[in-house]
Amino acid sequence: MAITSIAQPAPKLSKKEYEARLPRIREELVRLQIELKEGGFPVLLILAGTEGAGRGEVINKLSGWLDPRGLETIAFNQRTEEERARPWIWRYWQTLPAAGRIGIYAESWYTETLTAHFATRRSIVHLDRELAAIRNFEKLLHDDGTLVIKVWLHLSKSEQKERLQDLEKNEDTAWRVTPEHWKHHRHYARYERVADYVMEQTSGEGTPWVQIEAEYSRARDLAVAELLLKRFRQHVRRVERRKGQIRTPAETRPLRPSGRARLLALPLDQDMSSEEYDEKREKWLGKLHDAVQAAHLAKRSVVFAFEGWDAAGKGGAIRRLTSAIDARDFRVIPVAKPTDEERARHYLWRFWRRIPRDGLVAIFDRSWYGRVLVERLEGFARGDEWRRAYSEICDFEAELVSHGIVVIKFWLQIGPDEQLKRFRAREDTPYKRHKMSDEDWRNRKKWKDYEIAVGDMLALTDTKLAPWHLVPANNKRFARLEVLKLACRQIESALGL
Amino acid sequence: MAITSIAQPAPKLSKKEYEARLPRIREELVRLQIELKEGGFPVLLILAGTEGAGRGEVINKLSGWLDPRGLETIAFNQRTEEERARPWIWRYWQTLPAAGRIGIYAESWYTETLTAHFATRRSIVHLDRELAAIRNFEKLLHDDGTLVIKVWLHLSKSEQKERLQDLEKNEDTAWRVTPEHWKHHRHYARYERVADYVMEQTSGEGTPWVQIEAEYSRARDLAVAELLLKRFRQHVRRVERRKGQIRTPAETRPLRPSGRARLLALPLDQDMSSEEYDEKREKWLGKLHDAVQAAHLAKRSVVFAFEGWDAAGKGGAIRRLTSAIDARDFRVIPVAKPTDEERARHYLWRFWRRIPRDGLVAIFDRSWYGRVLVERLEGFARGDEWRRAYSEICDFEAELVSHGIVVIKFWLQIGPDEQLKRFRAREDTPYKRHKMSDEDWRNRKKWKDYEIAVGDMLALTDTKLAPWHLVPANNKRFARLEVLKLACRQIESALGL
Repeated sequence: MAITSIAQPAPKLSKKEYEARLPRIREELVRLQIELKEGGFPVLLILAGTEGAGRGEVINKLSGWLDPRGLETIAFNQRTEEERARPWIWRYWQTLPAAGRIGIYAESWYTETLTAHFATRRSIVHLDRELAAIRNFEKLLHDDGTLVIKVWLHLSKSEQKERLQDLEKNEDTAWRVTPEHWKHHRHYARYERVADYVMEQTSGEGTPWVQIEAEYSRARDLAVAELLLKRFRQHVRRVERRKGQIRTPAETRPLRPSGRARLLALPLDQDMSSEEYDEKREKWLGKLHDAVQAAHLAKRSVVFAFEGWDAAGKGGAIRRLTSAIDARDFRVIPVAKPTDEERARHYLWRFWRRIPRDGLVAIFDRSWYGRVLVERLEGFARGDEWRRAYSEICDFEAELVSHGIVVIKFWLQIGPDEQLKRFRAREDTPYKRHKMSDEDWRNRKKWKDYEIAVGDMLALTDTKLAPWHLVPANNKRFARLEVLKLACRQIESALGL
Repeated sequence: MAITSIAQPAPKLSKKEYEARLPRIREELVRLQIELKEGGFPVLLILAGTEGAGRGEVINKLSGWLDPRGLETIAFNQRTEEERARPWIWRYWQTLPAAGRIGIYAESWYTETLTAHFATRRSIVHLDRELAAIRNFEKLLHDDGTLVIKVWLHLSKSEQKERLQDLEKNEDTAWRVTPEHWKHHRHYARYERVADYVMEQTSGEGTPWVQIEAEYSRARDLAVAELLLKRFRQHVRRVERRKGQIRTPAETRPLRPSGRARLLALPLDQDMSSEEYDEKREKWLGKLHDAVQAAHLAKRSVVFAFEGWDAAGKGGAIRRLTSAIDARDFRVIPVAKPTDEERARHYLWRFWRRIPRDGLVAIFDRSWYGRVLVERLEGFARGDEWRRAYSEICDFEAELVSHGIVVIKFWLQIGPDEQLKRFRAREDTPYKRHKMSDEDWRNRKKWKDYEIAVGDMLALTDTKLAPWHLVPANNKRFARLEVLKLACRQIESALGL
């Protein structure tokens, strides 16, 4: 990383000086929160540092200065079973504060990484891998407009000793010192060395570490508050600059024409009699049942993403699929308008929150790919946002796969004539009419644009770990059977069956 | 229970008859969902029945007939660690669908209760206790406007045998039959007897069981759909009748004058020098730290509810309290405007979702008592709603306590003069001004009304399991110390220290 951490000295401050400066700072903090609520981005304040440097005291002070309604303090315990049963980063996604709110991380992803590193003396390779994941995670948040502030409260070895001894001397405060503190003290040099390395490796653009000297508590507390204010001002300017950018209209030039060519080359009109279908369906349902059961026993999850044109038959295919799976083991997640809790966070948050625990199946009816399809074409996402999304999505899926999750992605392809036929049939059937809206007709008019967006998606997110399955779907029976077969084969191959 | 379950025969239906009736039913189901989305209440469709009766097939059919965007299928696996670490009912609260949506329970609270009953041959007392909890839970949902439909799909012993044998005969469908099915068959009579008992015990007003004969699958599927339609119509009429009721203005007559008398009898003006406070504070922080630590080790949770007048000092008291607790072990939950996910559910849902796992601490800054305070006085809750809330809240707290959670409730009491002084000081201090809003002045004008509501709350929810602590708070130092002491003592006494 080019950007290294910045040390910030905090010289001693008399009580009088402190009290003279405090009112203005508190006023500014309060104004910050009001502005934040209106401006709408999340703030992450990550506190780490030398043991005994007073992280808890800083949080308590800040909690008094800030409006608690816009604030949450976050810390992590030992991983729970639920957390162990999901990708490493999952638990951190769950805690992200909503836009307009401040999350103070008393413990963070750094705590776990550092603790594990010291406890197990794992190889540097392992550490580097986790640091890379952290860097990606913070970059993703920063890119999305989250303000990430990282503070390292620093004490020298002698200051640390003095602090711990002072606390222990007084009977009433002795409980604040634990054996862990002294262990840290004994290994001071090693802790420092690793901490420096971690800070250096994870100070990215927009996510630098700032070291604050913690010898004098009043000065320390004010320094943290001032850093928060300074970074907030900078961030507001950044956000405004972005908003000022002219929102380019929907981008319809292809990024990768090869994807669209692949889509158009797909033969669509297969034949399949109802008898042939009935017979094969039972066979493949049985096979799929066995495959899902094997995955369940191996504690491997399966995540399906169903995408396709309006009326391509996603719902019908999903229902055939689920008829082979025990109701306890799967959830179908229709992806429609986000709730306000979802809207207030990164677009991937709503998918992360639905990632199943080991051994279970989640079926997304439409998915995170909305970002590069409808959001791209309707201008809901800015150009830099949807362009960035291809790699964000690949990273997301890679994290799922590296945890052992089988990620199965279907694009159900029909031709425009077939769609028209189905639209008309829907309009003519009273109980299907609700499936049609003006939006469907509007989307249809943009068929060519969608073809390009779908093509780019296929070209840019068809990875080895999580390949796209293109399913010809003009013939519903053929398509449903294909879905069963492909799902079955991918699960078997992932399990090495 | 006065209301027993109703048996619904479903005679054989030819394919032709079925297909003639289906379109109208599908159309009505679709209209139901559109109306539901606008009308706004949750629908729970609980499916249970004889093994092999085709619960999965019914769900698959319904999923095809209904719009999947307004639907979720819910089932439960073995309890996870997270679920075991919380009250029995917690996992069920988590799954409740939002208003406007239908939740189909492929498995429900009944599954677990029945399974446990058969597996462990527990005493009938244990079963009765769970059935009572279920009855309460469903009543609470029904009272709140949720439509609860409970279907028991029934097969006779010989039909069950035939069904299982048919499936086993065909190589492709044999996997659908498990040893569990045959076990069920062998103990058919016992299962039937217990099922009848459970249905009888849990058919409450508005939550009756309906038995549907499942011998003929087409007839069975239509019967479930028709039941859904019928119950929906009845429910809409009920909801409209309720809306038609004149919304009485805020009710300010006391239900229990003794509560208000208790409140007014509290002496408020204690003395405490800053030296005395400093000294005692450290002592009580240490004691509280030890008590919380002991609770943590004993895997007992602590849930705090802080209530009190505006400017009574809740925030300050909470910050003193938390300075004694490890950041990993507690969460402060400020209760403000509900999110839309919360608003769409029972008012207790947002609190249930924040109940900590065993060993952790949750501190609610304002709480579920808003229902009988602000919601009562501002007319946000109807008369029947807030009147019912006292016992709902007592039940809620009793469930927490019976799981081992220590529930600590504080009312911080100040006089109107003290409040005025603090309001003015807030308005005069730039960094405190944000704490004041017009609402505070409006609430202040209703002081007498609030006194009555607070009095009723104290009288009707001051239980042995979860007592109210009245804290005189005109003197902030005294109040903060009282909070520390009382919290400490209640935890110690709950742990038997």
